[in-house]
Amino acid sequence: MTSGGGPARWVVPFAEGSAAMRDLLGNKGANLAEMTRVLGAERVPGGFTITTTACVAYMRSGGEAPSGLDEQIDEALGALEAEAGKRFGDPADPLLLSVRSGAPISMPGMLDTVLNLGLGAESTEGLAHRTGNAHLALDSRRRLLQMFGEVVAGVPADSYEEVLSRTRDEAGARYDRELDEGALRKLIDEYLAIYEGHTAEAFPEDPREQLRRSVLAVFDSWNNPRAFTYRRLNGIPDELGTAVTVQRMVFGNTGERSGSGVAFSRDPTTGERRADGDFLVDAQGEDVVAGVRNTEDLGGLADRMPEAHAELLASLERLERHYRDIQDVEYTIEDGRLYILQTRSAKRHALAAVRFASDARHEALLSKEDALRTIDPEALTALLHPAIDPDSDYEVLTRGVPASPGAAKGRIVLTAAAAEAGAAAGEDVILVRPFTSADDVGGFHAARGILTAQGGKSSHAAIVARGMGRPCVCGASEMAVDTAAGVVRIGDRELHAGDTIAIDGSVGTVTGDDVELVRPRVGDAFAEVLGWADDIRRLGVRANADTAEDARHARELGAEGIGLCRTEHMFFGPDREELVREMFISGELARRERAAGAEDGPRESEYRDGLARLAEIQRRDFSALLAEMGGLPVTIRLLDPPLHEFIPVSGFDRELAEAEAAGDEAAVARARERRDVASDLEEVNPMLGTRGARLGLILEGLYEMQARAIAEAAIETGAGGAAGVEIMLPLIAYESELAALRQRVEAVVGEVLGEHASEVPIGTMIELPRACMIAGRIAEHADFFSFGTNDLTQTTLGLSRDDAESGFLPDYASRGLIGRSPFETIDVDGVGELVWIAAERGRATKPELKLGICGEHGGDPASIEFFDEAGLDYVSCSPFRIPVARMAAARAVIG
Amino acid sequence: MTSGGGPARWVVPFAEGSAAMRDLLGNKGANLAEMTRVLGAERVPGGFTITTTACVAYMRSGGEAPSGLDEQIDEALGALEAEAGKRFGDPADPLLLSVRSGAPISMPGMLDTVLNLGLGAESTEGLAHRTGNAHLALDSRRRLLQMFGEVVAGVPADSYEEVLSRTRDEAGARYDRELDEGALRKLIDEYLAIYEGHTAEAFPEDPREQLRRSVLAVFDSWNNPRAFTYRRLNGIPDELGTAVTVQRMVFGNTGERSGSGVAFSRDPTTGERRADGDFLVDAQGEDVVAGVRNTEDLGGLADRMPEAHAELLASLERLERHYRDIQDVEYTIEDGRLYILQTRSAKRHALAAVRFASDARHEALLSKEDALRTIDPEALTALLHPAIDPDSDYEVLTRGVPASPGAAKGRIVLTAAAAEAGAAAGEDVILVRPFTSADDVGGFHAARGILTAQGGKSSHAAIVARGMGRPCVCGASEMAVDTAAGVVRIGDRELHAGDTIAIDGSVGTVTGDDVELVRPRVGDAFAEVLGWADDIRRLGVRANADTAEDARHARELGAEGIGLCRTEHMFFGPDREELVREMFISGELARRERAAGAEDGPRESEYRDGLARLAEIQRRDFSALLAEMGGLPVTIRLLDPPLHEFIPVSGFDRELAEAEAAGDEAAVARARERRDVASDLEEVNPMLGTRGARLGLILEGLYEMQARAIAEAAIETGAGGAAGVEIMLPLIAYESELAALRQRVEAVVGEVLGEHASEVPIGTMIELPRACMIAGRIAEHADFFSFGTNDLTQTTLGLSRDDAESGFLPDYASRGLIGRSPFETIDVDGVGELVWIAAERGRATKPELKLGICGEHGGDPASIEFFDEAGLDYVSCSPFRIPVARMAAARAVIG
Repeated sequence: MTSGGGPARWVVPFAEGSAAMRDLLGNKGANLAEMTRVLGAERVPGGFTITTTACVAYMRSGGEAPSGLDEQIDEALGALEAEAGKRFGDPADPLLLSVRSGAPISMPGMLDTVLNLGLGAESTEGLAHRTGNAHLALDSRRRLLQMFGEVVAGVPADSYEEVLSRTRDEAGARYDRELDEGALRKLIDEYLAIYEGHTAEAFPEDPREQLRRSVLAVFDSWNNPRAFTYRRLNGIPDELGTAVTVQRMVFGNTGERSGSGVAFSRDPTTGERRADGDFLVDAQGEDVVAGVRNTEDLGGLADRMPEAHAELLASLERLERHYRDIQDVEYTIEDGRLYILQTRSAKRHALAAVRFASDARHEALLSKEDALRTIDPEALTALLHPAIDPDSDYEVLTRGVPASPGAAKGRIVLTAAAAEAGAAAGEDVILVRPFTSADDVGGFHAARGILTAQGGKSSHAAIVARGMGRPCVCGASEMAVDTAAGVVRIGDRELHAGDTIAIDGSVGTVTGDDVELVRPRVGDAFAEVLGWADDIRRLGVRANADTAEDARHARELGAEGIGLCRTEHMFFGPDREELVREMFISGELARRERAAGAEDGPRESEYRDGLARLAEIQRRDFSALLAEMGGLPVTIRLLDPPLHEFIPVSGFDRELAEAEAAGDEAAVARARERRDVASDLEEVNPMLGTRGARLGLILEGLYEMQARAIAEAAIETGAGGAAGVEIMLPLIAYESELAALRQRVEAVVGEVLGEHASEVPIGTMIELPRACMIAGRIAEHADFFSFGTNDLTQTTLGLSRDDAESGFLPDYASRGLIGRSPFETIDVDGVGELVWIAAERGRATKPELKLGICGEHGGDPASIEFFDEAGLDYVSCSPFRIPVARMAAARAVIG
Repeated sequence: MTSGGGPARWVVPFAEGSAAMRDLLGNKGANLAEMTRVLGAERVPGGFTITTTACVAYMRSGGEAPSGLDEQIDEALGALEAEAGKRFGDPADPLLLSVRSGAPISMPGMLDTVLNLGLGAESTEGLAHRTGNAHLALDSRRRLLQMFGEVVAGVPADSYEEVLSRTRDEAGARYDRELDEGALRKLIDEYLAIYEGHTAEAFPEDPREQLRRSVLAVFDSWNNPRAFTYRRLNGIPDELGTAVTVQRMVFGNTGERSGSGVAFSRDPTTGERRADGDFLVDAQGEDVVAGVRNTEDLGGLADRMPEAHAELLASLERLERHYRDIQDVEYTIEDGRLYILQTRSAKRHALAAVRFASDARHEALLSKEDALRTIDPEALTALLHPAIDPDSDYEVLTRGVPASPGAAKGRIVLTAAAAEAGAAAGEDVILVRPFTSADDVGGFHAARGILTAQGGKSSHAAIVARGMGRPCVCGASEMAVDTAAGVVRIGDRELHAGDTIAIDGSVGTVTGDDVELVRPRVGDAFAEVLGWADDIRRLGVRANADTAEDARHARELGAEGIGLCRTEHMFFGPDREELVREMFISGELARRERAAGAEDGPRESEYRDGLARLAEIQRRDFSALLAEMGGLPVTIRLLDPPLHEFIPVSGFDRELAEAEAAGDEAAVARARERRDVASDLEEVNPMLGTRGARLGLILEGLYEMQARAIAEAAIETGAGGAAGVEIMLPLIAYESELAALRQRVEAVVGEVLGEHASEVPIGTMIELPRACMIAGRIAEHADFFSFGTNDLTQTTLGLSRDDAESGFLPDYASRGLIGRSPFETIDVDGVGELVWIAAERGRATKPELKLGICGEHGGDPASIEFFDEAGLDYVSCSPFRIPVARMAAARAVIG
């Protein structure tokens, strides 16, 4: 790129650049230029950037430095020397430079850096003398030799590391910094020899040659295989090129009037408007990080160097106003003069994020939209769950997968039944299992928290616990649970049923200590910023909730309805399970009776009796739920899981053994028949078996019972109206299924609700790829679609949630074959594409079709962004994720 | 519809219509007109058709007969009377009429018919007198009363049936035809009373009123709920209307010079050019069907009535030449005069179909394309498999699902091991199991046939048996298999291991008799017509074949390559199974070792040793296969099934028990470790688990071993070249999987084949909905796609093949929710749509991308038609279905 008449401009001093010149200066160069613009040249160590266009010209010419580059570097270097009052290569007081690569797009695969350029044999002594710190000077020289050798001359890193390691051993030193002057001098000589051995030339002591060769080496690094692969994987064009930033080095370890530290423009923990940070006198930045000495707080700096302290506060203030966000700044004081090395947005606790967003808006620092942009929606979960008191000191017994956030404390129970008994007796219990299944769900309700030895974030335990808002740690693989013996072993340690433990599902820790659980104080700012999010977002936010308690919680957190009530969860509980088992067994027997030609056999009437008893329970549950939601929409899904989940064979095996032991022949026959039915219903791939609508179609009367209970509850709470209730049919693959079931449901609802029946929308889950393909025809029979992205992910990817998370998915992630798990963030290319197609085809048939999503992705910010883009009407998620979803939905609008 | 000046034409006599007037005359009217055109008016009982436009006008006017209709009917009736020489309503010798509905599109839901119109009280006696058959006359009258009452006046059918049933009981008669004159007369009186009771008017004895009201009743039937629903379900427009055909009735039961029969223009069993059929003297058509008396053959007719016989032969000849297909004709002879009542294409055995196609072409009756159109591709399978001698008399012990065609006979074995032992000893064995799993595959190879008590057409047994061409009867649910006791129980009958049975998998029968198995003689005509099909078809036809024997068979049947060689099938067999188990167990242990940080642990080398031993076996197998195919393309799929299929826990449980019994501690430890590994690998939904590419990626070395064995086999048989081999990677969901595996496979192939490596295409199965969505990106790494429609059906529909066929699918089919099983014929709307999308996206990236399909649908004619339309390059199917596929592919082209 050459401009009109004169030579092209290959070099841009910091003071002449800005953040807008990222393409030309790379990230690093643009950031330094911007900071220089904000704080003035005296506050940022000077330097200049060689542009990406120079790199491109260099590559195009096949490795020739573009014409005019050397001259422009010389010129910029001259200006830098003048500003710093030091000369590059001055033996007495040398100006030292760093050279760093910086592409316009962050490329961690290509970070080549050379420090301490300009430090020849003589000037090393000069630096030692000037700073009174021979160790500093020698170690800087040693590092120059190593970095230059590796980056510029291609000397293998091992060559240096081997010598360094031997030197440390000989000196009895654990860290490089413990090497004494003698050792360092010997090391330098050996490094020089290594260089010569590998390159057949002496180390170039001419500082300008060092600089020139370093710059070209950075250009070359653009095409190293690592960088090439990284670009390929991330779709970065090869033509961009990298910039090279050359900067003066400053030293915080030149005595008592020097030092380094990190500072924040506001408190990153609370958000309080008060600069915060630390300081280490007579030290470089890396010493602060290494934690060799204890740092002081900013008060310490104020005491030692009030002027530098004031300058730091002023700089923080200026940077924050400029970048309009809490800043996290690295600074160095060299001989009393403050230099800001880097600034970036500060990582912050959710409390601080919320407070800053609120304050910044009131301070007119940020607009409402910009204030919201400073909050990571995901972080908000930290404000909703209790945690183990972060100030307490406790022993972590073991760790697992942080599967459902929040902390819980209680006595160990090893079975769902024990959990229920404990809860009934008013105890706090933690359910500890090798893994969990549908059998254990009653125990989830009863327990404060769940701990398992197996399974990952998508295991049964994790999903159910998150759904109920119960803290859960999964896959604590060091733990062995011996349910029969009532013992939990972790290494040598034995815990017993009844012992107290605490788990923290936000971080995955388990402790046996008697810790305090604390709930973060959420101030008014929380409600305020969520209110702004509500003003902005387009997507509705509903909750997945199965009980009145869940519903109340969801409303408190801002849910605008229930997007998914799983009626099967109402089938669990000690008072219900036997009833449910009886009903299903007799239902299956009645089905066989009918298939054999008997229209109204004895099983049929047993089954009908069972349904009637359950109907009463369901009606009460639905009434409570609807009452809690006060007329907001409540989508109730009819029974979904495979039959055999309710009637596991193991339960009947026990029953049979007991009957045999008691010698009761009638009981034996009965138990055997039940066991056989349960066994017949076991499936090879239950996920793909007889469940959802399939069950509803063949087990006649079941969905009718549920629909009737829903309609009766609606009339009870809705003052005659439909109370916002919506009925949803799961696992539809063929439109004929929906048509048939809709007819049955409409008949029952019509009987109960009469003219109000038309107020009850009837819709379907869209959770099979086939349903997406024929969504246009399904829409003819549906008032709404709710995407079940959990199941849709399983079928689209051919991935069993139960198996993949403990199977190949972790392996895939570690090999870089996939990014985030498709069960955490929606797989946009596969599942997302199907959602698009289904939404489009459904609305082509019925423009007013309401579209929602009720899979776990409904609470994931990245997924919510996608759902907004795809034009869905609402997302539905666990109650605890409602604030996250509200915020993410707003972010989806404002970007 | 009114023409220019005069009144609209509502009535068309048979002699003035033709087949082209189907829209106006309906199917029935058009067919009768066409037949009249071909044979002349004297050979078809005369009549006329009232047009669909008359029906439409009637409906539009709200139920008014259109103007001119009555007059036109009168006119046509006059002509008919003149032609027949009888008068409608003549008390002495009445002309009797039938009235039938006939829509342009077949609508079985709306078939309203009234017979014997014109038979008043008096003319009944006249008819009795003229025919000398009072029973005929009275029963005709009785039927008129009942049909008119039901169809025209809406009298409930039950009213008549109740009286009829009582009359039969009183007369001690089992069938209506056994009622005597007295009983019939009494019945007629009661029927007249029923009519009057329901309609409050006397039965209309005026023949013209009967006719008029019958015609309007047929019009009305167009809108009855049954017809309405049928049209809705089948997408037939309501505006079409129905025609009404009025025809003179003829009687074959008026004495010795009368009779009825059915005749074929050629022998429907052999295709021989010789009229064939039967004849029953002094009988109506329904008597022939009822089988009351034994019929004679056409020779009998020739003896009795040579003239009518000659006329029949001439008519058959004329009809066959006109319709250009073997005709199946119903005829009646009334007083020596032949009437043809109906003609249609004859159902025929496959042998006859093939012979006719060949003959008809040589006789210049049909073009090549038209000759092919007369063959049902599916029927060809009957020519490829032995069957139980159809002439033998044997007892059917029980029936099951005809799951894989062909018959087999042999001694009962109850385990795969016993099958292998029996086969090794040279015995023919039938493997009888409750159900089968991957464990049993070795037994499939060894057995002549497979019989199971559970599972349907898509069960494991059915799929594997069809794939190997082994006859199989599945789901013989009356049968109980007690493997431990070595007993098979069917009702009271007990069979034992070692007893001889025979099964016929084409029809689903099982017998204990010592039947003969016969193979149909396939003549030259078979090869000839398949040759024509090959000339015409666009789709390539390959075979799914795993062994050299399969490959030879496939080539004999015309396969142009192998589209799917499942390498896992090479892992079975008594000499291999232990090797395979060892290899996988050590492979999994090596993987854990590596995950724990050990790079080259002891398990790793055990695993590598196991791989090396298997490599040698695989190389030999591949060589034999490639040699058999002589350079034709051979697509070899790398290992697909989930690991645990090779190492079922049960096997190790046995091993552990034995080791414990022997008290060998080292063996116990070893067995326990192996059992634990196998148990860890069990999956909740194996179909959606760690299999295919997933296994290939995490179990390093396995696919490399297979690729090396393939390349070595190629070089061995290909004289240095690649011998047509193609390598296929299964279960790709992400393009990153294919890219990574392709790299590994290419490296190995390159090492072995050098410059010839580029001759080996590397492609992928497309068998997950996600793969269809991202087919464009997958195509960047694939030389070909092969649609695995079995798995794609399972994932797209969320249907486990193993569970659905014995679960809800049969129920769905019986409720009319689905048509054919999606595992038999591709689900065009769901799975097919995904195939379209993938084909389009794949070819958009790479226009030369080769597209095939290797699921079971590759051998299904309806599916093949779809694959042709979707633009695929080839289908691949079981060797035995190759002829079906060749024919179906030709039919896809010619329609």
